[in-house]
Amino acid sequence: METIRLNHGSGGREMHNFISNTILKKLGNPVLEKFDDSAVMANLKNTRIAMTTDSYVVSPLFFKGGDIGRLSVCGTVNDLATSGAVPYALSLSFILEEGFPLAKIEKILDSIAVAAKEADVKIVTGDTKVVERGKGDGIYINTCGIGFIPENVNISTHNAAPGDIVMLTGPIGNHEITMLVERGGIDFETSIESDAAPLNKKVESLLKKTDGIRVIKDPTRGGLASALKEICDHSMVNIEIREEDIPVDPEVESVCEFIGYDPVYLANEGKYIIILKEGSENHVIDVFGNESAVIGRIGKMSEAGKPPELIMETESGGKRRLGMLETIQLPRIC
Amino acid sequence: METIRLNHGSGGREMHNFISNTILKKLGNPVLEKFDDSAVMANLKNTRIAMTTDSYVVSPLFFKGGDIGRLSVCGTVNDLATSGAVPYALSLSFILEEGFPLAKIEKILDSIAVAAKEADVKIVTGDTKVVERGKGDGIYINTCGIGFIPENVNISTHNAAPGDIVMLTGPIGNHEITMLVERGGIDFETSIESDAAPLNKKVESLLKKTDGIRVIKDPTRGGLASALKEICDHSMVNIEIREEDIPVDPEVESVCEFIGYDPVYLANEGKYIIILKEGSENHVIDVFGNESAVIGRIGKMSEAGKPPELIMETESGGKRRLGMLETIQLPRIC
Repeated sequence: METIRLNHGSGGREMHNFISNTILKKLGNPVLEKFDDSAVMANLKNTRIAMTTDSYVVSPLFFKGGDIGRLSVCGTVNDLATSGAVPYALSLSFILEEGFPLAKIEKILDSIAVAAKEADVKIVTGDTKVVERGKGDGIYINTCGIGFIPENVNISTHNAAPGDIVMLTGPIGNHEITMLVERGGIDFETSIESDAAPLNKKVESLLKKTDGIRVIKDPTRGGLASALKEICDHSMVNIEIREEDIPVDPEVESVCEFIGYDPVYLANEGKYIIILKEGSENHVIDVFGNESAVIGRIGKMSEAGKPPELIMETESGGKRRLGMLETIQLPRIC
Repeated sequence: METIRLNHGSGGREMHNFISNTILKKLGNPVLEKFDDSAVMANLKNTRIAMTTDSYVVSPLFFKGGDIGRLSVCGTVNDLATSGAVPYALSLSFILEEGFPLAKIEKILDSIAVAAKEADVKIVTGDTKVVERGKGDGIYINTCGIGFIPENVNISTHNAAPGDIVMLTGPIGNHEITMLVERGGIDFETSIESDAAPLNKKVESLLKKTDGIRVIKDPTRGGLASALKEICDHSMVNIEIREEDIPVDPEVESVCEFIGYDPVYLANEGKYIIILKEGSENHVIDVFGNESAVIGRIGKMSEAGKPPELIMETESGGKRRLGMLETIQLPRIC
């Protein structure tokens, strides 16, 4: 079995061959193939640009519903789309551990190519580094994305306003519970899969249908509660959600009860929180499907000197104040 | 001593505090402080954009003349400038190992801030991941950069033409020999320092002085020979250089003789190969100083079906054909 050697990161012949024979074969396009140190993209319109980056250190590398390659595209295009940007180009950088099998890299590159096609975005530049055995964990991936924001689109976590509706585009927790199961954290089989998916084309459709969208945010690490609390803090508003309206798949719910996890803190890789002016709810359902649900409402502006509050009405009718995630539930879920 | 814990990468409160208290304190600017998942930059002109990325895995993290933070800015802005682009924004992503001291991160962030100021570029977005002890090596950094290419600037490794002059902006090998010395690879003390420096402002000056510049390339991993061979291959030309004209500091030369390294394969972090129309040499010396030197010339177009050749006239008067670096001399030098 061919494996990664230190020479693959040398800057010399073997690295060049590796890039030409392995990476370009999977991801080639005219910009990337030019193979200069910088990718050059022509003829931008006079518009706003969005830029975002994430490093992916997920473990295990392959899991039900996806792998590190799929995540590394979806996570970054989904972040771009939170600003309403249309993804334009991605960079791709590998930190490989000596001894990592080339066959796994090929499989990961296939996933990257598929996800990039789904998202309709090109990888235009990249980098490969290799570290010694025991100084990494197979492969870490960084992607950086840029995109352009159409005129009149103004979406930000700073824009939530009192009276706005809080929606979720589908059930939460599937990604993190998948990772837990894959790591042998629980003893029983489930059919739960990661929800990793590029959502940018859906955001594009949604923004063409309505100008009522204020905030789009993906509840990744830290989950729904941490993401909503961040919106509270940025927009200086209180947010009220109802536990019974939050979509959670029954199997995810069972696992959570079994091990004492709280779904509102579980990471997702293919869901959005969408905050919108009342009246635009149906557009979200049209685009994201029937799994989308209204889960709450933006309350009052927070009072001067008081931190904004995220309050969840529990299924038993009580009120619970939610903060950001305090202690990591499962490390390396993306 | 405070050290990195898994919670620092959790997506929760501790990560937020870490970003606010540690990272934003060092690198804050209005775009980054907005703290949305995507950085949004306003009002681009109708122009070409350049994008480049590198992950930095250098070992040791701190060395004479620089550290991983300085490298992670210089390497990326220098790559942007190879296309003639004026750097506009950088992303910054950390993969931190559990147990890595915060004090070192602060020191690295200081270096990043200083180098970004020298390069006149802003860090607009970032990410932090933490891996378990033994799954990394303290800190790995990725930066991605975008920049804009002024009108009429057309610089690429594909542009070298027969008769062009090959220059080097200063002595080679200092960065890689510094890394060798720092790792205890040789027994004697030297005063050699890494040359890590942002060169983009110099490129801007040069391009204002002359339109004779065809190729700018930084001889990093793989060194001068690998970089020139890449230019041969991209431009389909032969290149002839003279060993005696290649600037090498005496101490670097001594170390190379002592351990059998070849300076033309040593990595640099603050030098450029510049290929230009005859007559523009003085502009390079004006901008990059007296250490710049003409080291050769572009020969004929390579013959159909024959690979382009890089030929070095040796100090003894012989001719040596140089290829790309075959075997890594020292891993993790950037």
